Amino acid sequence: MKPIEDYVVSIPDFPEPGIIFRDVTSVLQDAEGLHLAIDLMQEKLEGLDFDVVVGPESRGFIFGVPIAYNLKKPFIPIRKKGKLPRETVSAEYELEYGTATIEMHKDAIKPGQRVVIIDDLIATGGTNEAMIHLIEGLGGKVVKTVFLMELAGLHGRDRLQGYDIDSVIVYPGK
Amino acid sequence: MKPIEDYVVSIPDFPEPGIIFRDVTSVLQDAEGLHLAIDLMQEKLEGLDFDVVVGPESRGFIFGVPIAYNLKKPFIPIRKKGKLPRETVSAEYELEYGTATIEMHKDAIKPGQRVVIIDDLIATGGTNEAMIHLIEGLGGKVVKTVFLMELAGLHGRDRLQGYDIDSVIVYPGK
Repeated sequence: MKPIEDYVVSIPDFPEPGIIFRDVTSVLQDAEGLHLAIDLMQEKLEGLDFDVVVGPESRGFIFGVPIAYNLKKPFIPIRKKGKLPRETVSAEYELEYGTATIEMHKDAIKPGQRVVIIDDLIATGGTNEAMIHLIEGLGGKVVKTVFLMELAGLHGRDRLQGYDIDSVIVYPGK
Repeated sequence: MKPIEDYVVSIPDFPEPGIIFRDVTSVLQDAEGLHLAIDLMQEKLEGLDFDVVVGPESRGFIFGVPIAYNLKKPFIPIRKKGKLPRETVSAEYELEYGTATIEMHKDAIKPGQRVVIIDDLIATGGTNEAMIHLIEGLGGKVVKTVFLMELAGLHGRDRLQGYDIDSVIVYPGK
């Protein structure tokens, strides 16, 4: 079987010059790649005691829901502003230009629950930091975040010190 | 165990007066509800010969990926315009006000492949019709679409005649 890295197509200069885009859809497009990616992410949770899987729209849904299904946990979506129908809490985070707002249902996490965050990629860590802020604001404890891919050259871990962060594939660059 | 219908929270007058919003996040928020929803959708595919699962951003990802994982199939995402990094095909469809464009990677479906579409909800059927257009344009054959929920009063099936459409929960209204 191929290693997981071989399923990722890298696209230079997308979405802008100087950026190498790591395309997760090329992993999903192969039945073995999809299975392997989810299994390797799930292995990072072995032996961990937790109550809830949280994942952000929309690529966090791709890996978060099958892991929640396999481990018989609830899945809590974090979405962009205005998409969740019930009462929400929200957090703002910085983008390269401007800011974005994410929301989570207020009743999604109960105080004291142990939460795992699942997402496809860590870059600067800004989204993850905002998600942790939402979860902790509701009294949840973020016990681990698992990414499929990490762009280590963007130093996302630096702003997430004290949190358990794990990635299946680590790219040294940006 | 509760029937699947009991996990769906219905929210009157969201996002506008007269609409009853059927909230899928309330299903996911319960580990048993999440498991049951995926299992019941997957049961609709029993005995069916197919090659690929396709699901639209972002709630199609929620149910499409675990089903692809369980049945060892590839998952092909259909996304909003400008989000897929490689060469795409696109289709436009009508919204209540204006239009929207969806895209799929051009190499995602090979001619002759048998495709299953997974999504959370059928309303007017417009998104589904556009997805079928994309898949058939690449030479794929849509052998079935499975929804978790159907708003039968919006008559989405009428514009999808000749296609095999199946839903786990059918609401008679809008």
